[in-house]
Amino acid sequence: MENKSETHAWIRKVIPAITPPSINDNTADVDRLIKGVRRELEGEAVFVDLSLDRKLPRSLREYGYRVEAVVFRGRGGWHLIDILPRDTHPEIYGLAVDLGTSTVVIRVLDLMGKEARAETSFHNPQIEFGTDILTRIHVASQDGGLKTLQRRLRDRINSETRQLTKSLGISTDAVMGMCAAGNTTMTHLFLGLTPYWICREPYIPVRNTPDLTRAKTLGLAIHPEAPVLVLPNAGSYVGGDLIAGILASGMTRRSETSVLVDVGTNAEVVIGNSEWLMACAGAAGPALEGGVAHMGMMAGPGVIDRVRIDPRSGEFLLKTIDNQPPVGMCGSGLIDLVSALFLAGMIDIRGKYVAANCGNRLIETDGTQHLVVVSAKDSGTGRPLTLSQPDIDALIRSKAAMYTILTTISNTVNIPLVEIPRFYISGTFGSYIDPRSAITLGMIPDRPLDTYIPLGNTSLEGAGRVLLSSQDKEEIYRIRDRITYLELNVNQEFMHLFSAAKFIPHTDRDRFPTVTVRSS
Amino acid sequence: MENKSETHAWIRKVIPAITPPSINDNTADVDRLIKGVRRELEGEAVFVDLSLDRKLPRSLREYGYRVEAVVFRGRGGWHLIDILPRDTHPEIYGLAVDLGTSTVVIRVLDLMGKEARAETSFHNPQIEFGTDILTRIHVASQDGGLKTLQRRLRDRINSETRQLTKSLGISTDAVMGMCAAGNTTMTHLFLGLTPYWICREPYIPVRNTPDLTRAKTLGLAIHPEAPVLVLPNAGSYVGGDLIAGILASGMTRRSETSVLVDVGTNAEVVIGNSEWLMACAGAAGPALEGGVAHMGMMAGPGVIDRVRIDPRSGEFLLKTIDNQPPVGMCGSGLIDLVSALFLAGMIDIRGKYVAANCGNRLIETDGTQHLVVVSAKDSGTGRPLTLSQPDIDALIRSKAAMYTILTTISNTVNIPLVEIPRFYISGTFGSYIDPRSAITLGMIPDRPLDTYIPLGNTSLEGAGRVLLSSQDKEEIYRIRDRITYLELNVNQEFMHLFSAAKFIPHTDRDRFPTVTVRSS
Repeated sequence: MENKSETHAWIRKVIPAITPPSINDNTADVDRLIKGVRRELEGEAVFVDLSLDRKLPRSLREYGYRVEAVVFRGRGGWHLIDILPRDTHPEIYGLAVDLGTSTVVIRVLDLMGKEARAETSFHNPQIEFGTDILTRIHVASQDGGLKTLQRRLRDRINSETRQLTKSLGISTDAVMGMCAAGNTTMTHLFLGLTPYWICREPYIPVRNTPDLTRAKTLGLAIHPEAPVLVLPNAGSYVGGDLIAGILASGMTRRSETSVLVDVGTNAEVVIGNSEWLMACAGAAGPALEGGVAHMGMMAGPGVIDRVRIDPRSGEFLLKTIDNQPPVGMCGSGLIDLVSALFLAGMIDIRGKYVAANCGNRLIETDGTQHLVVVSAKDSGTGRPLTLSQPDIDALIRSKAAMYTILTTISNTVNIPLVEIPRFYISGTFGSYIDPRSAITLGMIPDRPLDTYIPLGNTSLEGAGRVLLSSQDKEEIYRIRDRITYLELNVNQEFMHLFSAAKFIPHTDRDRFPTVTVRSS
Repeated sequence: MENKSETHAWIRKVIPAITPPSINDNTADVDRLIKGVRRELEGEAVFVDLSLDRKLPRSLREYGYRVEAVVFRGRGGWHLIDILPRDTHPEIYGLAVDLGTSTVVIRVLDLMGKEARAETSFHNPQIEFGTDILTRIHVASQDGGLKTLQRRLRDRINSETRQLTKSLGISTDAVMGMCAAGNTTMTHLFLGLTPYWICREPYIPVRNTPDLTRAKTLGLAIHPEAPVLVLPNAGSYVGGDLIAGILASGMTRRSETSVLVDVGTNAEVVIGNSEWLMACAGAAGPALEGGVAHMGMMAGPGVIDRVRIDPRSGEFLLKTIDNQPPVGMCGSGLIDLVSALFLAGMIDIRGKYVAANCGNRLIETDGTQHLVVVSAKDSGTGRPLTLSQPDIDALIRSKAAMYTILTTISNTVNIPLVEIPRFYISGTFGSYIDPRSAITLGMIPDRPLDTYIPLGNTSLEGAGRVLLSSQDKEEIYRIRDRITYLELNVNQEFMHLFSAAKFIPHTDRDRFPTVTVRSS
């Protein structure tokens, strides 16, 4: 079983039979190793870099020529990463990395056992230079900006990796591969490629298919010779994260058409099946993630992630993570809250506060209306948690964008949304959305709730699969090559649809038969 | 004609048809370039390194996407070196380098015109750490020694390259390839590989087939992405310089058996034809090169390179380079001189001074006999130029080694030396040897003088050919793989033959019928 999966690995350990040198066989050390490794790989070419030539003679002798060789498949054949002493049965690891605009997640995988061993997530340290992609592109275009952004991210990945390996009791040199997925701008920033032209017509990335590179080239704190695969992009607005998601969803292995919705800083939507794929992306807006709404924050202890309003008492029923006193609200909580406010008649179909129904929860500060969700005395911060009118407006734009993207892409391929049996929801945040609330807001089509299948962090999941399997590595490029990108920036129809979608749930109420509002 | 040779080049310039990006074709910059280049290379894989990804978008725009691409064939396909603006018809160059133990030679070649443009030679700066290979291996094994040796050589190659390119009025970035040939230890030192095990039984190099690397990896002052090919070795004692020589001699393209003698710090001999090749090497001794005999030096103005002794007057007839006052003597002069001393009866068949025939030229200093070759008043240095008995003894050992190597290898393949129609003499110094004098000494077989064909610096010549041609690049590995190495270090017969060859011309006078000594 392990053997079977082993042969599918593109990062592999082989055990070459090597005779120590003698006067009758004075083959050079590295040539000798290559010959042995090559025999284990069915005669395919084996390459060894100069930096390894420099250390191999000593290691070979130290291990008495009884070694295991770790190799990866790259340009023209297999490439040596390192040799290890044979008798200690050393384990080898790899990192799957989700390079999110807001959150970066690192997962350590055992490359032989093919299982996750540890994981950590943290705010992308580039947030300090701008929460959104456009600001970061701007920063990257300034003198030294690109280097700073790249270094900041790399240093944090390195320190987190050191922590992770330490917690596992392994050396960073035991980490012999990395697969990273991110949107196109994030992969550019990770690789030190300028994102300058990504946001300028005609929106040209530097590179959509980054070559395999070595950890040392990027200054990553894993084995310096480890291959680093950055998942390919399909264009400026369809990144490797989405392609990883398509792989992880399995939608390309089914003949029936399904939809993948990746809810992150952007809303990215893919529709397709084993025959074809169409993708489009639009700014769903950071309103859906922590950091913009006044009390918005990422999931964590004390963060409100579920909200209901009691129909009779009007009481706010809040659930916080770990049941800690409330300190803020994450995206899924926000969608619940606004949906509940609408059902309770506290906001109207435009998303505007209805003062008559809000009572003394509605306050005005600096000319802006705020709804007190949690009073100062119940709050974990000692200050009231409030939702402002602009916060709601931003959410409405986001949900309108999401619904419009779904409508546009379904119109384009001429398959009505109501005929699609599965909607995969990916993105760590997306997975926590209550589809009922999202339907109420008119963010997603009014379909039976089990139509929506949360997949979690598919960017990370896809990166992990590519790290472990040659087939998945090849599949990722096949997926990329089959994607047709629907450009929304130049789509006239989009703006019309968007205007109609800016109401709750929609100007066309027939589209949302299950949404019923209490009469106020 | 140029087109024909072009297709044989492994470093090539191609002119890709690239459409600038538009909203209808938003292929990423590098992917777009790769696509264009790939079409020009019959669809073979084209790779672009991350370091180039970083600069290409700007260059592509600067040149309006009208570019020429310089590529080389390497692992798995073609690899980009750089792009150039199309309309300026930029020329591209390469360096052929002979990494001699004593002398390094750099030749600049026009990669398109396939011709030499400039050349320079200089003492290997590693000489400071030891004139011979064994001393350098010892130095390299000490703390920081290898790095120092490597850096010293590299820095000098860099400064000489800057001089050469400056003299040609070109930028060092216009140099887009390098081929270097040297003996096994020199290639190790050039690449920063430890030569420690080369001189220790069972004599194992780190690597006989160095991978193509990039100039930046070695810190060479040419285009950082330029490929650097170090010619392969066949073993610890048969280096890339000899293999380059075999290529340059053309002996493997002929069915009749010939011999190649490379006279450098070592004597290396190859016998073979289009079917087979056997090589052996032995310490011919640095006596044959400048630096050991008291007045020994490399060729240069005032250096004695031809010597005759007038049979009647006993007068020494000296020719110096550029007819300058004599300042020293190079190897070919030394062989002439000792041969003439023997013919004049001033030394006996053991190479010992015959006081009776030397007159007042023979002096004794510190218990050692010296022959005054040039008196202080005639010398360009103001001091007499003398030849000591130990100088002669060293030369005798060298010539004996050379003859013994030739005899041993001919015995081994069972082809008498007298049946071999061509002896190629290579090595800059070797080319200047007067075969008549070398026969008199018993250094080379007593054959008609036109049997000996001087080839000059075949290491440099071979490196240059490999730089320019795919076929020659492939041929060099075929040659290497066909060489059978005859190990002299463990050859018993060798010591017997060596003893007999330590006389002038030989204990067996029948082998040298044309050598007749004046009766004293």
